[in-house]
Amino acid sequence: MKKKDINRVNNINIKDIKDPYFVRTLSYKQLDILADDIRKEIIKETSINGGHLSSNLGVVELTIALHRHFDFQKDKVVFDVGHQSYTHKILTGRSLERLRKSDGVSGFQKMDESNYDCFEAGHSSTSISAAYGFAVARDLSNDNYNCVAVIGDGSIVNGLSFEALNDIPHSNHKVIIIINDNEMSISKPTGGLGVVFAKLSASKGYLNSKKRYTNSLSKTKFGRFIFKITRTIKNWISAILVPHNFFNDLGYYYIGPVNGHNFKSLDKALKEAIKTPKSVILHVNTIKGKGYAPAENDEIGTWHGVAPFDIETSLPKNDHHLTKSWSKIFADFVFDKMKDDERTVVISPATLKGSELEKVFEQYPNRSFDVGISEEHAFVMASSLSLCSYHPIIAIYSTFMQRSFDEISHDLARMNINSTILVDRSGFVGEDGETHQGIYDESFLINTPNIVLTMPSNVTEANLLFNESFNNRGPFFIRFPRNYVSNPKVDKNVNISFRKWILKKKSESNNIVILAIGPLQNELLKLINDNNVDASFYNCLYLKPYDEQALIDCLKYKNIVIYNPYSTKGGFASFISTKLIEYGYKGITHIYSISDEFIKQGTILEQLEKYHLTPEQIIDDIKKI
Amino acid sequence: MKKKDINRVNNINIKDIKDPYFVRTLSYKQLDILADDIRKEIIKETSINGGHLSSNLGVVELTIALHRHFDFQKDKVVFDVGHQSYTHKILTGRSLERLRKSDGVSGFQKMDESNYDCFEAGHSSTSISAAYGFAVARDLSNDNYNCVAVIGDGSIVNGLSFEALNDIPHSNHKVIIIINDNEMSISKPTGGLGVVFAKLSASKGYLNSKKRYTNSLSKTKFGRFIFKITRTIKNWISAILVPHNFFNDLGYYYIGPVNGHNFKSLDKALKEAIKTPKSVILHVNTIKGKGYAPAENDEIGTWHGVAPFDIETSLPKNDHHLTKSWSKIFADFVFDKMKDDERTVVISPATLKGSELEKVFEQYPNRSFDVGISEEHAFVMASSLSLCSYHPIIAIYSTFMQRSFDEISHDLARMNINSTILVDRSGFVGEDGETHQGIYDESFLINTPNIVLTMPSNVTEANLLFNESFNNRGPFFIRFPRNYVSNPKVDKNVNISFRKWILKKKSESNNIVILAIGPLQNELLKLINDNNVDASFYNCLYLKPYDEQALIDCLKYKNIVIYNPYSTKGGFASFISTKLIEYGYKGITHIYSISDEFIKQGTILEQLEKYHLTPEQIIDDIKKI
Repeated sequence: MKKKDINRVNNINIKDIKDPYFVRTLSYKQLDILADDIRKEIIKETSINGGHLSSNLGVVELTIALHRHFDFQKDKVVFDVGHQSYTHKILTGRSLERLRKSDGVSGFQKMDESNYDCFEAGHSSTSISAAYGFAVARDLSNDNYNCVAVIGDGSIVNGLSFEALNDIPHSNHKVIIIINDNEMSISKPTGGLGVVFAKLSASKGYLNSKKRYTNSLSKTKFGRFIFKITRTIKNWISAILVPHNFFNDLGYYYIGPVNGHNFKSLDKALKEAIKTPKSVILHVNTIKGKGYAPAENDEIGTWHGVAPFDIETSLPKNDHHLTKSWSKIFADFVFDKMKDDERTVVISPATLKGSELEKVFEQYPNRSFDVGISEEHAFVMASSLSLCSYHPIIAIYSTFMQRSFDEISHDLARMNINSTILVDRSGFVGEDGETHQGIYDESFLINTPNIVLTMPSNVTEANLLFNESFNNRGPFFIRFPRNYVSNPKVDKNVNISFRKWILKKKSESNNIVILAIGPLQNELLKLINDNNVDASFYNCLYLKPYDEQALIDCLKYKNIVIYNPYSTKGGFASFISTKLIEYGYKGITHIYSISDEFIKQGTILEQLEKYHLTPEQIIDDIKKI
Repeated sequence: MKKKDINRVNNINIKDIKDPYFVRTLSYKQLDILADDIRKEIIKETSINGGHLSSNLGVVELTIALHRHFDFQKDKVVFDVGHQSYTHKILTGRSLERLRKSDGVSGFQKMDESNYDCFEAGHSSTSISAAYGFAVARDLSNDNYNCVAVIGDGSIVNGLSFEALNDIPHSNHKVIIIINDNEMSISKPTGGLGVVFAKLSASKGYLNSKKRYTNSLSKTKFGRFIFKITRTIKNWISAILVPHNFFNDLGYYYIGPVNGHNFKSLDKALKEAIKTPKSVILHVNTIKGKGYAPAENDEIGTWHGVAPFDIETSLPKNDHHLTKSWSKIFADFVFDKMKDDERTVVISPATLKGSELEKVFEQYPNRSFDVGISEEHAFVMASSLSLCSYHPIIAIYSTFMQRSFDEISHDLARMNINSTILVDRSGFVGEDGETHQGIYDESFLINTPNIVLTMPSNVTEANLLFNESFNNRGPFFIRFPRNYVSNPKVDKNVNISFRKWILKKKSESNNIVILAIGPLQNELLKLINDNNVDASFYNCLYLKPYDEQALIDCLKYKNIVIYNPYSTKGGFASFISTKLIEYGYKGITHIYSISDEFIKQGTILEQLEKYHLTPEQIIDDIKKI
């Protein structure tokens, strides 16, 4: 038996793994080899398909160790966000070969993929609440499985995590919470809790395992590099050592910190966690990106989520060097504005890198705020800043902004706060799938009083809307997609009228008028011109307030086509339909927006095609009118 | 000067106060008299107008003390929620005489009421973020005012508070956070933090001030009662004394606990808080309801928010003894269901009393969960419970549910979780005004995939929908208003078809069809019958999915009237308008729903009238068709 296992590990074909039980029988040496093989597989498949790299490389040993002590067909494990579950997928027989493709495995946990997945996420900080719900159910049923949440030091600072952390200890429903603490990220985004972690890591428990940790790190070049950095931090921290424990205070049994790359330490800690009757915090130190040099060295999150890359050179395969992302376009506007106006401030909820704001934060550190994964706090803080005549810019992804819907309504909009909100990744997002689609914010925003809601079709309009947001009284939202622009130049000769739509083409008849939103309209307009379709065409860059005069002009057309491939129908399409109903419009309205569904992973083009929203599909329909 | 002040306090007319500066010159004895006078005023005006009582009685001394040390025309104070700002209003020259009336002061802080109000709220846990934003603005401007948040031990457990608490210490922007810790509420709703507070209160700092506290308490009958309770709790807690401090760990300078009814202690603590360069947590112990016996004795929140009452007997002036609240109607359904089905669980986010669930929680404590003000956690926890075949019922107010919009979409709806959500106080809420209107959830819910959204028009339908929610696959929302029902009997002979509208009246012509939502439709239907208006009438109790066949039948009518006085137009009205557009309806649609505005305080009737939504207003319009 032992010999067979050794062979299996030594000649392992990761793709042959069907279930995780074999890891229980391996020696520590064999486990190290397995971890190494899994790392190689993760690096390889992520380099081909894109995906989350650093976090997955950090938890290889931890995940293997979990499968040695738990049976996750019965026990419950919730990986927070779920983006770090690649090792879990491999061990439970799932290939990463088509990772994040429409026919492949998800980048997150998914119940319909495997019996080993008991919950799903994509947004951060749900794991502790979810594990608690499972624990309550277990105890009500007199069942006896374990409930485990694995959560990073970045996610635990979000309010939802804390609500659960706070609620659990008073009950007798035991949960095991594993905090995956990447030493590299002891910094601002983890705020006060980051300091708590640092103190704990500098305390006795940690020092005991220091030798093992050092040894383990010294094995690799980057290990030594990391050790050098962490030693510096540790020396600094040891000055403020305290003999007590934040988590004990809340009512937990605290174990750790444990070296998350050492199987023996993990074994010991997990045994203790299982044995303890109280709810447990198991604090594990890991190294983000472990095993891939560029990811280990990364300090700003470049290797958190990646597009396909070349393993040797570490360069992206598609470097978009002739194009510019919408995020970067707006980041450059923000930079210029911060330079020109010292009453401008910018707030990012832990998406600094994704929003490409590094240069802004470097140049203007006093007026730039990374609040961590704290979307609610970001909006309330912005509100009071604005009341003191600082104009806040919040750069946020559409999908994560859902966490702030109450604050957008109750604080920002109700007090009519002057502010600019850059809603990044609006519309389909592609490979991240259901949990990340940026398509639900529009229906919320368009139904919230006082809000100005816009979406530019090109960079020049983007610049004009951005500038206008600083003249506006109240909250000004600008949506833009997850995409690249081939011509990122701002044309300084163009101007737009505030709250007016742009008539891009005037029909000779009153047959068809098209009301279009966002950059894809340019392709549709080109097809209309190329096909000599006789139709008027409005660029509805102001979604709300809408251009009342233009809409009244539209009433004379027999057909109104609403084209908004960046939102569900509940957004602009529904808003305008209601206006048309109120105006008593008697013609035919054709609505092209996203159906009322959760949209699965695939490429953005696949998603557009599936929901009949490509310009080519629309032009075919229009030609038939 | 001193003599004049003594006179002023001894013969004080609270209504003559124009500004708060006189409190700085009073002796401690005079301050005690002032506090007593203010308490009487608060009790009197709340007994006439209704409002928040217990919390306001608890912070009288604290608020006076704040005005001795700060000038809130320059310094910033944010009372969390703002419902405990009555003393602040009195000291800044605002009469409570028309409290919460359309022509009177708000029950919360309001910027347009006074220069002494720098921020507004109504939902909990925004104060720390807001104070931090003010502090950042101050430091960027090299200004030198103080930023103070006053927050209760119930509100601080919400995720938003924690996001701010965690974000502040790493910065050098100083904030003074005053935790108003009501010893009576050291219990479940404050979770792990409750235990932290208890430990702190049992620690050295507290014991030093114990004598003062005891003396102060012994002055009143209820003081002695409270002391007895708190002593018991303290004895229990002293067994788990720890020598360290949760807030120090996070990076704050901790002061306290301080007796919040002793001016000398408050003076000393506030001086220290102002002097300290770091951000401060000032922990103040107060007695909720202090000075009014029934409120002091209250353990379940009966005296938190009250309707007009008789001060002597403590009975409500309008006791609705012939009617039953919608909350109670549903609470009784929940009770019966919990009795019949042991796989039913109920979750309340700190609104146990408002949802009238006390009996349920008493009878079924193991399956009843008060998670505190943790709306996000409530929904995620419900999701995993449901995945283990427990059917969660979440009883929540519409306005507070806004905090869970992301979890409703990302967790509940996306995983299509079997669950029953009772959306209490849907529609206008009256006196609480802008921040509490239950009118924004419908547009969000109706645009979220997988959700079934309903609203009954009477108790029998309510019961049938409630029962149906347990047969449904996915999340089932039932909206109901803040109102009373005169006939709360369930008619067991009635049945409804799943996802079908009810045709209540069939017109002889094809002129008018009315699509109506919620209880007010009964009055409209009565007026239609009384006035012999020839119109068909549908009770659209299923908002989504809508009754497709019924809506297609409606297309033959010349006029479609949509009557939904419980939501903004962005809800059902807009949803159906879009369907009508898609069906190519050529008639006239008349929409009666709430305008896209934040709706000010007043009675519900005033709000209905102002937005042209009373049945009488609608019937007049219909008669003109």
